Amino acid sequence: MKIKAAVIGATGYAGSELVRLLENHPNIKTEALTSKSYAGKSYKEVYPNFSATDYICEEEDIEKLSESCDVIFLALPHGEASKRISPALLNKCKVIDLGADFRLQDIDVYESWYCEHYSKDVLKEAVYGLCEINREKIKTSRIIGNPGCYTTCSILTLYPLVKEGIIDENSIIIDAKSGVSGAGRGVSLSNLYCEVNESVKAYKIASHRHTPEIEEQLSYACGKKIVLNFTPHLIPINRGILATCYGNLKAKTTYEEVRAAYEKYYKDEYFIRLCNKGAFPETRFVKGSNFTDIGFTIDERTNRIIAIGAIDNLFKGAAGQAVQNMNLLFGLDEKTGLDFVPPFPI
Amino acid sequence: MKIKAAVIGATGYAGSELVRLLENHPNIKTEALTSKSYAGKSYKEVYPNFSATDYICEEEDIEKLSESCDVIFLALPHGEASKRISPALLNKCKVIDLGADFRLQDIDVYESWYCEHYSKDVLKEAVYGLCEINREKIKTSRIIGNPGCYTTCSILTLYPLVKEGIIDENSIIIDAKSGVSGAGRGVSLSNLYCEVNESVKAYKIASHRHTPEIEEQLSYACGKKIVLNFTPHLIPINRGILATCYGNLKAKTTYEEVRAAYEKYYKDEYFIRLCNKGAFPETRFVKGSNFTDIGFTIDERTNRIIAIGAIDNLFKGAAGQAVQNMNLLFGLDEKTGLDFVPPFPI
Amino acid sequence: MKIKAAVIGATGYAGSELVRLLENHPNIKTEALTSKSYAGKSYKEVYPNFSATDYICEEEDIEKLSESCDVIFLALPHGEASKRISPALLNKCKVIDLGADFRLQDIDVYESWYCEHYSKDVLKEAVYGLCEINREKIKTSRIIGNPGCYTTCSILTLYPLVKEGIIDENSIIIDAKSGVSGAGRGVSLSNLYCEVNESVKAYKIASHRHTPEIEEQLSYACGKKIVLNFTPHLIPINRGILATCYGNLKAKTTYEEVRAAYEKYYKDEYFIRLCNKGAFPETRFVKGSNFTDIGFTIDERTNRIIAIGAIDNLFKGAAGQAVQNMNLLFGLDEKTGLDFVPPFPI
Amino acid sequence: MKIKAAVIGATGYAGSELVRLLENHPNIKTEALTSKSYAGKSYKEVYPNFSATDYICEEEDIEKLSESCDVIFLALPHGEASKRISPALLNKCKVIDLGADFRLQDIDVYESWYCEHYSKDVLKEAVYGLCEINREKIKTSRIIGNPGCYTTCSILTLYPLVKEGIIDENSIIIDAKSGVSGAGRGVSLSNLYCEVNESVKAYKIASHRHTPEIEEQLSYACGKKIVLNFTPHLIPINRGILATCYGNLKAKTTYEEVRAAYEKYYKDEYFIRLCNKGAFPETRFVKGSNFTDIGFTIDERTNRIIAIGAIDNLFKGAAGQAVQNMNLLFGLDEKTGLDFVPPFPI
Repeated sequence: MKIKAAVIGATGYAGSELVRLLENHPNIKTEALTSKSYAGKSYKEVYPNFSATDYICEEEDIEKLSESCDVIFLALPHGEASKRISPALLNKCKVIDLGADFRLQDIDVYESWYCEHYSKDVLKEAVYGLCEINREKIKTSRIIGNPGCYTTCSILTLYPLVKEGIIDENSIIIDAKSGVSGAGRGVSLSNLYCEVNESVKAYKIASHRHTPEIEEQLSYACGKKIVLNFTPHLIPINRGILATCYGNLKAKTTYEEVRAAYEKYYKDEYFIRLCNKGAFPETRFVKGSNFTDIGFTIDERTNRIIAIGAIDNLFKGAAGQAVQNMNLLFGLDEKTGLDFVPPFPI
Repeated sequence: MKIKAAVIGATGYAGSELVRLLENHPNIKTEALTSKSYAGKSYKEVYPNFSATDYICEEEDIEKLSESCDVIFLALPHGEASKRISPALLNKCKVIDLGADFRLQDIDVYESWYCEHYSKDVLKEAVYGLCEINREKIKTSRIIGNPGCYTTCSILTLYPLVKEGIIDENSIIIDAKSGVSGAGRGVSLSNLYCEVNESVKAYKIASHRHTPEIEEQLSYACGKKIVLNFTPHLIPINRGILATCYGNLKAKTTYEEVRAAYEKYYKDEYFIRLCNKGAFPETRFVKGSNFTDIGFTIDERTNRIIAIGAIDNLFKGAAGQAVQNMNLLFGLDEKTGLDFVPPFPI
Repeated sequence: MKIKAAVIGATGYAGSELVRLLENHPNIKTEALTSKSYAGKSYKEVYPNFSATDYICEEEDIEKLSESCDVIFLALPHGEASKRISPALLNKCKVIDLGADFRLQDIDVYESWYCEHYSKDVLKEAVYGLCEINREKIKTSRIIGNPGCYTTCSILTLYPLVKEGIIDENSIIIDAKSGVSGAGRGVSLSNLYCEVNESVKAYKIASHRHTPEIEEQLSYACGKKIVLNFTPHLIPINRGILATCYGNLKAKTTYEEVRAAYEKYYKDEYFIRLCNKGAFPETRFVKGSNFTDIGFTIDERTNRIIAIGAIDNLFKGAAGQAVQNMNLLFGLDEKTGLDFVPPFPI
Repeated sequence: MKIKAAVIGATGYAGSELVRLLENHPNIKTEALTSKSYAGKSYKEVYPNFSATDYICEEEDIEKLSESCDVIFLALPHGEASKRISPALLNKCKVIDLGADFRLQDIDVYESWYCEHYSKDVLKEAVYGLCEINREKIKTSRIIGNPGCYTTCSILTLYPLVKEGIIDENSIIIDAKSGVSGAGRGVSLSNLYCEVNESVKAYKIASHRHTPEIEEQLSYACGKKIVLNFTPHLIPINRGILATCYGNLKAKTTYEEVRAAYEKYYKDEYFIRLCNKGAFPETRFVKGSNFTDIGFTIDERTNRIIAIGAIDNLFKGAAGQAVQNMNLLFGLDEKTGLDFVPPFPI
């Protein structure tokens, strides 16, 4: 018996990546794909890589879908999911939201960085779907706030350092670089080929909405309120995030001691690959996969640690992690449909 | 019981793509990877996308491998495979050669375009491994000459037009564009990032070695000796080949008549996707897959047909087709390990 | 005394390149830049590469500009220039139109490929501004139809072959590849970074509007009506056009004979650089310059010539050629403001 | 009377960019180009963008060149310049070294990060050629250590903040991103197109040789010994450096106060363009120019300033700055040959 799934908002890049992973997943039957912009159109016209399939984009009817499906994925702009999800709906099916609405537990923070939140009661039971950190909670949840792309990469890179009290919580700086697919498929001058190609820029400096999400999760890790700097950059690649994270060491610490901290949390994590000493992640080697690669070094001259993480923003940073969460929710092997060597070069 | 495979020349781009597909294939156990340059090294050091695996690059010992393996793949420079393969070896295991040595049946042509051929007796029984054309012969063969990347794309695009006598055999011009991975992982000035990026060039004009391969196969199709123009171009993408093919119509012909010719041969071919009228292939939609997308139009002003094909050069143009051939050789479903929706954008 | 110039449509890519070349030109004073979309805005906000300048985008008032300026450049969508230009206006200033309205002398052809033409009387005196071919006519003209990008590259590559009767006029096939800036700065899904990057496609196959322009000019060259195939492709680079041109030789011809034909017409042309035998153009070496590089080979096997040309589409294919025309119109050295070694790599 | 120049090491990317700028400079005559790898070859064969010129690569004979030239530029690997320069040679001509040998005044630091230094006596009189900071000293010098690419961008971005004591000198973190031309034209696996394209990585983390250069110059600025973190990243673009710089504010400071500090030093600097409040530099707008664009913001949440600088690594980061230095050395207008609007998109 296959799990029945629907994807609401199936024609953005993250939505499309999710549809692909579900299509290639051995235990899923995709019941419906909905799209505001393309309702009525053949999915393979919108995405010709799907030419061997026969989906049609439908109008959204979440109530009906909740009757017929075991799980609904939402890939919508922020503010849209919170309008749709109620406890009643969660009685009928599980929900995994790829947007921002169920990631932040602190509603004031959510509302100051985003907009009004329309289902505060549901939020209370939502679990932050970072599988490597919240695995057990996820398994028994009804609604998952699937983490953001930058946040997944940043939190996984910094978690052991913060959890084990290795770095000064007030000294954290995250300088992140992302491919262009992170901006979605919306049409705008700033995402035209000639405007992005052969250039690099920082954007939303000291004001990107993933900042409070990283802060909230790292604050949970160490039990202290963390405020940090997060600077996203746009670079001309399709996919990939590299997060270069800086922190001041609280005390003199060796490479091996820090390594032990990483291994304490990640040793058995299939999707986290720690680089050997002296090696560092590159996005090309995680592209098209659910892996997070992490490497670090200690700079004795400045007493800082530089820890670097790499993910594929559409995969581990969105659709792949959503499937990983789904696997957990339905008692499947967490790696199902995600367990392969990624291609290179691609 | 899994099929035991070895890859000789596992550290080039095509070899590495093959190792990946075998690793992700449900019926294969990879027994050995050999590499002249990296023998003794961990495979994941050479290709960190394999970080979750544990292969070691070995010295080559093809005789020994032929005892322990069911199939040996060769991904070597031309002239190397023909030195290694003998009828005796083929008594012990099947061989799929990704190089050029067993593609051309006309030895004079081979030796004038390449070099001396060292196993002419074996060549006679070799089958040209273009599955959609030679499926039945492949099934019972012991040795497969896996087609070249440009040739796969060009032949599949032109085959129905030539076979059905729609175009003048003397009028064929193929203008092909390839990504840089087609040049392999060898280190040279001309493949440095800054030498390739933001530019386009033709190369090996009227002299590329895939020319006689296309000519031989299309000549078989129509029973006449075909001589044609083939012009490869290098464009700054990692993967993908687009072949724009021109031919003069022998007689006034409608779109529907030509379409019928394509459908006659390809209607049931899973890996060939004919574009709808007015649509044409783009490499981004076949990237990372075994698909060949084909579209065409008729220019009534000039009485020519323009037919365009797209493949992923490392996949359908090399490793994917090798796996497709292997599936045929061992009686598996031809699509095994190759049957998925490819990612986009990637 | 500087020549006073205005640019109407100054905020597209071609318009902007023109503003830049005028700014860097020793004999020009730019009096006005007009823009429908950005009127009232600082030009350097629209194009921060102009940060050291102080232009403001103005509303268009072509009558007023014709009083104060010596030359007006138009960089507008087709159909817009023909609405604006009258013999009366040409009495007051010279006009160089970078659009399509004054390129085709055959009005029926123009109207069947484009739209209604609104100044047919003016068209009669317009000169096709391909300087290397029409230099003398340009010098005494009042209105120049600045050639298209694909057409400039295609015509210059084929001209000596057609003019000298070397190739069969009915056998011409032009397979062209262009960078993305050729599509302009208009916002559309198909020009988003992730839709263009890492892919190649043909488009407007057998239907691109530059086809009749190439045909008309080559027909003038040989005195026969030429119909040909022109296939444009989009490749992921910012700038550059490569035109790969095929033609059947009328008779057995040597490399040296063809070379002599090219030298007959281009020997003294500063902006045309003939490649040495065995060498071929690459767009990277003409990028950022007004040069056209041309190379060719003869394929004795098929009795065809393959001639390849490369230009920078925004420079020689638009703004640079417009400045070259202006230099001719005003009696300046044709190379003024265009005479420099271009950068590489860039 | 033109200044006579020679370039030793003319066939690397920086050397070639310099040859180009000299060729396009109104006051220079290039007497000789030398190249170890290409001696005897035509320069335009090595760099076909120079096809309209006629230079031949020569064997190096620096003594002879010092007799016939007014200025010699060196673009060599570190350790090579210090072997060649003596006080006697400086009596005959001026020297501008684009390498590292005359940048660091602290010889122990030089020798611990690089190699033995062979002309310590000359080093004492060398001036660090960052024109905006050391203009007066440069004018009267005989030998200039032309700054590194990362260092130019980092120092100019941080200088007013350090000089005016706005940020804590111990808190500086520089996260820099560079295009691939910074790695030069040397052939290596890691710079192949497919290894660099579609990826991002950090490299030489906490160990890049530009670190002590930045530290020495910023230490001079504030009179204290500065130790900082510098992390270079490689991104898939040909040209451009973006340096994202972080520092803790010593005291509560407003945007306007910091702005005033920047304007104090840069208000009259033609080649430094301060972004408007809320705007930040992007490498595409300085590409192909000598400009440094700088923007910054204050994060009140963390009490840090984030200041961002952008340059073209081959231009302001190498050859352009070398020409700027030469202009100063010979009493020319500092902007000569460098004063133009750069192209976009390119």
